[in-house]
Amino acid sequence: MPKTVFLGDAELARLLAASSAGISVADVRELVAGVLAAPEGWDPDAWLTLVAPRPSPELAEQLRALKATQGGAEDSGPNGATRLAALRAELARRGFDGFVVPLADEHQGEYLPPRARRLAWLTGFTGSFGLAAVLADRGAIFVDGRYTLQAEAQVDGALFERHHHTQSPPEAWLAAHAKPGAKVGFDPWLHTKNDVEKIRSALAKVGVTFVGASPNPLDTVWSDQPPPPIAPIVPHDEVFAGRPSTAKRRDIAALIVKEGAAACVLSDPASIAWLLNVRGGDVPNAPMPLSFAIAHADGRVDLFVDRRKLAPGLGQHLGPDVGLHDPLELGSGIDAAVAGGRRLLCDPRSAPYWVFERVRAAGSEPVEAADPCALPRARKNPIELDGTRAAHVRDGAAITRYLAWLEVAAATGTLTEIDAADRLYAVRAGGTLYRGPSFDTISGAGPNGAIVHYHATPETNRKLEPGSLFLLDSGGQYLDGTTDITRTIAIGTPTPEMRRHFTAVLKGHIALALARFPVGTTGSQLDALARQPLWQLGLDYDHGTGHGVGSYLSVHEGPHRISKVANSVALEPGMIVSNEPGYYRAGAYGIRIENLIVVVADEGGKRPMLRFETLTRAPIDLNLVDRSMLTDTEIAWLDGYHKEVREAVGPSLDATQAAWLAQATRPLEPMPG
Amino acid sequence: MPKTVFLGDAELARLLAASSAGISVADVRELVAGVLAAPEGWDPDAWLTLVAPRPSPELAEQLRALKATQGGAEDSGPNGATRLAALRAELARRGFDGFVVPLADEHQGEYLPPRARRLAWLTGFTGSFGLAAVLADRGAIFVDGRYTLQAEAQVDGALFERHHHTQSPPEAWLAAHAKPGAKVGFDPWLHTKNDVEKIRSALAKVGVTFVGASPNPLDTVWSDQPPPPIAPIVPHDEVFAGRPSTAKRRDIAALIVKEGAAACVLSDPASIAWLLNVRGGDVPNAPMPLSFAIAHADGRVDLFVDRRKLAPGLGQHLGPDVGLHDPLELGSGIDAAVAGGRRLLCDPRSAPYWVFERVRAAGSEPVEAADPCALPRARKNPIELDGTRAAHVRDGAAITRYLAWLEVAAATGTLTEIDAADRLYAVRAGGTLYRGPSFDTISGAGPNGAIVHYHATPETNRKLEPGSLFLLDSGGQYLDGTTDITRTIAIGTPTPEMRRHFTAVLKGHIALALARFPVGTTGSQLDALARQPLWQLGLDYDHGTGHGVGSYLSVHEGPHRISKVANSVALEPGMIVSNEPGYYRAGAYGIRIENLIVVVADEGGKRPMLRFETLTRAPIDLNLVDRSMLTDTEIAWLDGYHKEVREAVGPSLDATQAAWLAQATRPLEPMPG
Repeated sequence: MPKTVFLGDAELARLLAASSAGISVADVRELVAGVLAAPEGWDPDAWLTLVAPRPSPELAEQLRALKATQGGAEDSGPNGATRLAALRAELARRGFDGFVVPLADEHQGEYLPPRARRLAWLTGFTGSFGLAAVLADRGAIFVDGRYTLQAEAQVDGALFERHHHTQSPPEAWLAAHAKPGAKVGFDPWLHTKNDVEKIRSALAKVGVTFVGASPNPLDTVWSDQPPPPIAPIVPHDEVFAGRPSTAKRRDIAALIVKEGAAACVLSDPASIAWLLNVRGGDVPNAPMPLSFAIAHADGRVDLFVDRRKLAPGLGQHLGPDVGLHDPLELGSGIDAAVAGGRRLLCDPRSAPYWVFERVRAAGSEPVEAADPCALPRARKNPIELDGTRAAHVRDGAAITRYLAWLEVAAATGTLTEIDAADRLYAVRAGGTLYRGPSFDTISGAGPNGAIVHYHATPETNRKLEPGSLFLLDSGGQYLDGTTDITRTIAIGTPTPEMRRHFTAVLKGHIALALARFPVGTTGSQLDALARQPLWQLGLDYDHGTGHGVGSYLSVHEGPHRISKVANSVALEPGMIVSNEPGYYRAGAYGIRIENLIVVVADEGGKRPMLRFETLTRAPIDLNLVDRSMLTDTEIAWLDGYHKEVREAVGPSLDATQAAWLAQATRPLEPMPG
Repeated sequence: MPKTVFLGDAELARLLAASSAGISVADVRELVAGVLAAPEGWDPDAWLTLVAPRPSPELAEQLRALKATQGGAEDSGPNGATRLAALRAELARRGFDGFVVPLADEHQGEYLPPRARRLAWLTGFTGSFGLAAVLADRGAIFVDGRYTLQAEAQVDGALFERHHHTQSPPEAWLAAHAKPGAKVGFDPWLHTKNDVEKIRSALAKVGVTFVGASPNPLDTVWSDQPPPPIAPIVPHDEVFAGRPSTAKRRDIAALIVKEGAAACVLSDPASIAWLLNVRGGDVPNAPMPLSFAIAHADGRVDLFVDRRKLAPGLGQHLGPDVGLHDPLELGSGIDAAVAGGRRLLCDPRSAPYWVFERVRAAGSEPVEAADPCALPRARKNPIELDGTRAAHVRDGAAITRYLAWLEVAAATGTLTEIDAADRLYAVRAGGTLYRGPSFDTISGAGPNGAIVHYHATPETNRKLEPGSLFLLDSGGQYLDGTTDITRTIAIGTPTPEMRRHFTAVLKGHIALALARFPVGTTGSQLDALARQPLWQLGLDYDHGTGHGVGSYLSVHEGPHRISKVANSVALEPGMIVSNEPGYYRAGAYGIRIENLIVVVADEGGKRPMLRFETLTRAPIDLNLVDRSMLTDTEIAWLDGYHKEVREAVGPSLDATQAAWLAQATRPLEPMPG
């Protein structure tokens, strides 16, 4: 079928009028630019409803054609010297001696819209963590150990020195190279208060000031900077959310009052989506709209959002107590909220520094406290828990079908990482309530599995070879829950060493799955349980053991986690967290076993106790288990888990798959006696 | 033998002159008052050398007689209303609306000299933790859960409301009851900066100021307040200390420079004793002199100490780079240290707030950082480690002899807690290099064992009855090391429940003893390993798992610990820590198994790993072990430990004791196969 041709503005105007769209062609063109700055999403046509609630087929066709015409203007690639010179000229014009360019948006998000990829525009570096510092005569980029090689490949060393972010931090570099009296700028929208204060105090010691620069000087010189993304904001049905927004707003209002504030600025898109029971699609993998909000102590919410993103009927869903405002009105919203001596709660670890400045400029002192939505959002309600259990059964069935296929497909020795990942996307895509991946699949064969944040590219794409391990970390977004699962699969016959290391990882996984602990225990306290079997072998892994997971929201969600890093947030019933110990032998293979688990109350202790319920439902590769290393208790857990997997996903398998599963989950059985 | 009679001042003057003492009778009387404010110590005559290096026998007799005459003036007991009224009058006179009375001295010490027991003087409360707050029209005392009953018994509720320190904290009470504009005072010597700031910011919110009051208004009205203690300061020989003070001072100087300071205020008596290789006896159980010091970046130290405490020859031991100053000169010492823009390192968690005020008054800003002696002191050097190993063998032999005796003595059913504790003091007292207990023995029979900080008194003194458990927690100070050991002993036949709980505690103890962990791991990360077997039974214990231990210094020493509470200090080779999980069934029995362990490097891991070496050498009661609950690995640890005990302490036992030990440490042996 040939592609539809865009027939021109006049024809579009006619079709818009015929569909009673009430929007000009020029505005449609602007809207499309925003749509192109958002990921395509599960339903590539969803944005059409933002033009007209019920577009005619002809209008829909022309809109698609217009989008195809407008799109495709890729960044012309790093043109470092010119861009850096332009930025320096702008800084000089405005009296700055330097500037920092973080990899962040206004929401401190994990996934950034194209507009926020300033670091890549300036330096060429496309990794997920980094910061550049620019002075008049020198520049530097700061990345972590994961990205040392990538930064060397992508960034022009003549323009930017390359440094390790913690070993040679940006504030030390600036302190060493900026002259006393110098003025280094930052975009107050892109840094948290805690970030700013850390750099500011380091620079103050050498007489350098660190001051906000608005508008962002880089934006001024980035002439073809993409607009903010536009994806429809839709209701998240209470059948999935489990609690009406009005009730959530009452809860949050009580927390705001408790902190002595009259309102709270919300900048985390996950908090706003949770509070208002809405979802969106402005960034990949996490169904969140980007916006700001002020939640008031009377349960009202002011939402600062591009109104063009509201899907038809969303205003009604939000109801009369949610006021809609242009994003540019956030400042006056803050002014109004603190008028009359009232105080505003702001999270110094997530809200932009700009918010704190604005509150102070309005003559008030922010109440510094954690985002009040974070904890209630983390404690999933019974309906969310029922939903995630159901989503995990469907997801587990997809994984099981995939693994049965993989055993055959990998036997040829020609299957590649990218093919293997694509097949998994396809298998999941057919699932009920599925809405896309929850993150980019990590498909690592052999030595690529040892790269913790590996992303397969045509250049790195390996075959799954006999005698190797294949690490597959993936997840799905379902309307009723978010999944995240890692399985490590033996391709052919594994070595005894692979089995020993896999079994040590499995022992750690089981230790956490079986942990029982008193109310009040944090994830940091439990972390060592998952590591101790590896530690006994003189091994460890350099990532956390578990991260919080949202409910059809971000697959990485706080405030709890299971990690070496101290964390004061106690685990509470309803919190979902991953259980993912691993072991990575550089240049050889990677092992990770990841299930999602949820904290549940545990009966029968002398004091109130908690434990975990495992949510994920998919077999663990028994070919990699060294039975002699497992205790009876551990074997009983593994057999019991596999029995649950069979019972949960068995009914949705065909006969071949079911036979495969029966073999894959055969009981090992504890020693008799 | 009749007691010697004090023959009067004239005779004393004659004897002083004959011994060339160079001190007046009046000064001797003042010195004796200080001696009486210090614990008697291991050598009750040691103080005589402070009068004359070699007193004649007649002079010594008269000095002892004088001490007996001066002593014995006990506090007349709580006379709350009068004392509280006097304090309020003094506060009013000086323009204060309130005052806080902590249980603390200038050194934030665990053991307080009589002079610092202000809380007991004012309220009658003699527990080890508490704080009183006084306003013009009401007062309150704040204690923790351990002391709720004791506070009700000892404190007059008409004068002081009784509150729980964390559930109803003092700053909240003051904020609720002090009027806006009120001025609440505190003694800046008795609070750390962190303490003051916490209370100050809570009071600022309600318009109440929190300001230093010098001199302490309570001291002004406490007419018979004891003087500071006087006990001889003696050298700690390098054969025990393992490193000359000059070398330690060089190390500390480098740390001071690294923090950007020119000097450091030391207020922790353990740090000063460690740095200068001296010991003292101003407080019970920990051989430390009370003093302040300023350590300079050039290796010099200014010591602010009552010179009367210096044992003969100590000046020579300290050498020319240690300047001696009156304690009242600390302020001018600080002024001199910060002159010319130099900066002074002060620990906001241990130094008195007064120090911070003084530094600021001198126009400088303190460098806030942890006491630089704390970490080097915690990392015991090889000679200290050899010493503590030897001390633990001697201590273990004493405990073993004691346990052999106890089995016979307890069989009568008439032995009491106090008799049992006294016998243990006596058994230890004969030991080589022994210098006294490292803390007050906890001797808890039956239900008294369930009281974690139990102290047997004539009123609570129970018999060790058949079918009960006896918990015995004790330790010794030896010149070459400090010990701390808890054993729980079955008196007669234990119940299956007692054995189950004991074995769960033992499993936790073994898990920690066998732990292997990467360099960089903190004690907080390991804590759960010791608790998990109890957690699995729905049980827990409400104290830390391990505290640091000094080297012939305080039995409780930071900065490391093994605890639920987050702690950022990594365990390092040479750090000694206790391993003491427990279980307490209120009203029935207490179980605790405590060994000291030391962090050592571990070979053979892919990355640098650490593990523990167990120091304590004494049998664990096999009558309480349920063998069926132990894994083969755990049985192998227990058998191996008991073999080490036999080999270490066996040679110093008589035949009967050796036979008892052989039976008490018989191997359980893992399952064959």
